[in-house]
Amino acid sequence: METLKVDLGERSYPIFIGEGLLGNSELLVPYIAGQQVMIVTNETVAPLYLEQLKTGLEGFQVDEVILPDGEEFKNASSLDLIYTELLKKRHNRKTTLIALGGGVVGDMCGYAAASYQRGVDFIQVPTTLLSQVDSSVGGKTGINHPLGKNMVGAFHQPNVVIADTSTLRTLPERELSAGIAEVIKYGLIRDPEFLSWIESNIENLLKCDSEALTKAIFESCRNKAEIVAEDELESGCRALLNLGHTFGHAIEAHQGYGKWLHGEAVGTGMVMAAHMSRELGWLSSDEYTQVCSLVEKAKLPARSPDNMTPDDFVEYMSLDKKNLDHRIRLVLLKKLGEAVITSDYPQDVFMNTLSSC
Amino acid sequence: METLKVDLGERSYPIFIGEGLLGNSELLVPYIAGQQVMIVTNETVAPLYLEQLKTGLEGFQVDEVILPDGEEFKNASSLDLIYTELLKKRHNRKTTLIALGGGVVGDMCGYAAASYQRGVDFIQVPTTLLSQVDSSVGGKTGINHPLGKNMVGAFHQPNVVIADTSTLRTLPERELSAGIAEVIKYGLIRDPEFLSWIESNIENLLKCDSEALTKAIFESCRNKAEIVAEDELESGCRALLNLGHTFGHAIEAHQGYGKWLHGEAVGTGMVMAAHMSRELGWLSSDEYTQVCSLVEKAKLPARSPDNMTPDDFVEYMSLDKKNLDHRIRLVLLKKLGEAVITSDYPQDVFMNTLSSC
Repeated sequence: METLKVDLGERSYPIFIGEGLLGNSELLVPYIAGQQVMIVTNETVAPLYLEQLKTGLEGFQVDEVILPDGEEFKNASSLDLIYTELLKKRHNRKTTLIALGGGVVGDMCGYAAASYQRGVDFIQVPTTLLSQVDSSVGGKTGINHPLGKNMVGAFHQPNVVIADTSTLRTLPERELSAGIAEVIKYGLIRDPEFLSWIESNIENLLKCDSEALTKAIFESCRNKAEIVAEDELESGCRALLNLGHTFGHAIEAHQGYGKWLHGEAVGTGMVMAAHMSRELGWLSSDEYTQVCSLVEKAKLPARSPDNMTPDDFVEYMSLDKKNLDHRIRLVLLKKLGEAVITSDYPQDVFMNTLSSC
Repeated sequence: METLKVDLGERSYPIFIGEGLLGNSELLVPYIAGQQVMIVTNETVAPLYLEQLKTGLEGFQVDEVILPDGEEFKNASSLDLIYTELLKKRHNRKTTLIALGGGVVGDMCGYAAASYQRGVDFIQVPTTLLSQVDSSVGGKTGINHPLGKNMVGAFHQPNVVIADTSTLRTLPERELSAGIAEVIKYGLIRDPEFLSWIESNIENLLKCDSEALTKAIFESCRNKAEIVAEDELESGCRALLNLGHTFGHAIEAHQGYGKWLHGEAVGTGMVMAAHMSRELGWLSSDEYTQVCSLVEKAKLPARSPDNMTPDDFVEYMSLDKKNLDHRIRLVLLKKLGEAVITSDYPQDVFMNTLSSC
């Protein structure tokens, strides 16, 4: 097991990463303040891991909410199912919510914890690679609104994150690849050494090799934790984490949430960002090809959807919450392993990327 | 004009109190960071004060949401109307929400500000006495859930509060009295001198005398600000502010939100707390009568609803979020001007008060 400490002063917390951690009460119980626990999970994950998690919670009042599975359910109705269960089972202010599942479950459970009785404790037990490397670190919680993704939410830090690599064996291949997209992202934005490691170990990751996964999760979380510690409330460098995301969110929104996996859209988005970086003279053609090739090796889509026009991109990208002031800010690559945030680029280069990728 | 500074470190803010402050751009503009403003108000207040407020906001993109009036609309649907308008008008992270109205508008607008894009700025312009003395100080925001009042929310501090006493002239008498209930509360829990002042000035308050109102609002806010500065997240002494509220919430919930005004229920609740304090030997009979008499002079109900049994009280009081651990905590009076929080009292004394009051 590896342990990473996310350093946020009073709200610091550890991330435990390794095999067979689920149901280990020693990792869980010290982080539960009261007597009540509400596990929030979904219909796919519950049959696989709910009982195992509960074995680590003997002696507590343990209740559960099992939500439908999918990004399309990351909304106010699902959130209300959590509040209703908390109230029906009379959970008080000292309750602890536990998110067991992927990013959608984590975001909703975290937001329920941020807002129930104006804030209670929560613990993340992410069961997808995407949520292990990304959404369980950083304290972002929230739900989608019909008019925009993640438009409603709060910053709320978990007490502890338990990333059990064993849970990844039951993950569909597409979702494993979607998680690898975010792993690649950390290499691309700030860690060229890690990027090389990923290129050498992509096969092991796809095979769910536990050692490779633990390393990938640890390094991804470390990179993210360093950024978050610097910029908890996302006023500065944290935006680097959005490499591929502004393009990607447009794809997800245009296709309808849930059709493309988030990580798949990020995969294509990173190729688009690399393409534009090449057009701006920052990346060589070889480096651009290197990005495309890594995305393809990770079994991620490297091209945007056929039914999506450049105008569609512009429309959805300007709806993105980071662009509500009508200027589209992009994260681009100065070189491999170094990203920049910019809204200062020639419009024709941008449009050219939209039509080429 | 009086100015009170609420001292919360980085989140400190001023409260301006006096006549004719609405529409004074000098009190408003320095507290708006971006170019966009969303005014949240309701159908009753909008025709009276919306245009006046907007005169102080020239040069900004000013949008508005006009909600239906009433506690029964303090729910997820109204909240969604705010989010929808913010998104339709493309409000970005630098937007400022302005709550123009009573406590319901303030709580909802504040919660929308706490959660829109994970938190944006907001300003309180309370137009009822209740909200001027109470809900605009302390950072509590939220909505009701069908299973419980204020069960969903956040702590979110305003940038500034503007309490214009002129707006109280259009307030229905019942609502003025409801506000005075909270004013009396501050005297009862920690300020015997202020309590005497209220007893001497109750007629002036009921007549909407501006000088008396300014003093009452200032002293109430000062008392509340002192408590909140000590205990921002309500882990300790802040619970003293709930004098009369645990009884009162039960009345409100049993009667159906909106039938009894919040302050009316608090008025009766304070009489019940005083009754129980007398039974425990803490208040003399004269002091108990003094409380009843002040509540009555303020034209507040001093008796609980006829259709409400002691069992109804117990049921609704144990649903209150402060009692979800099955023990009913009460705020009682050690003497006039000194309250205590306790869940250690003989059950029969409690039941006796429920059946007597």
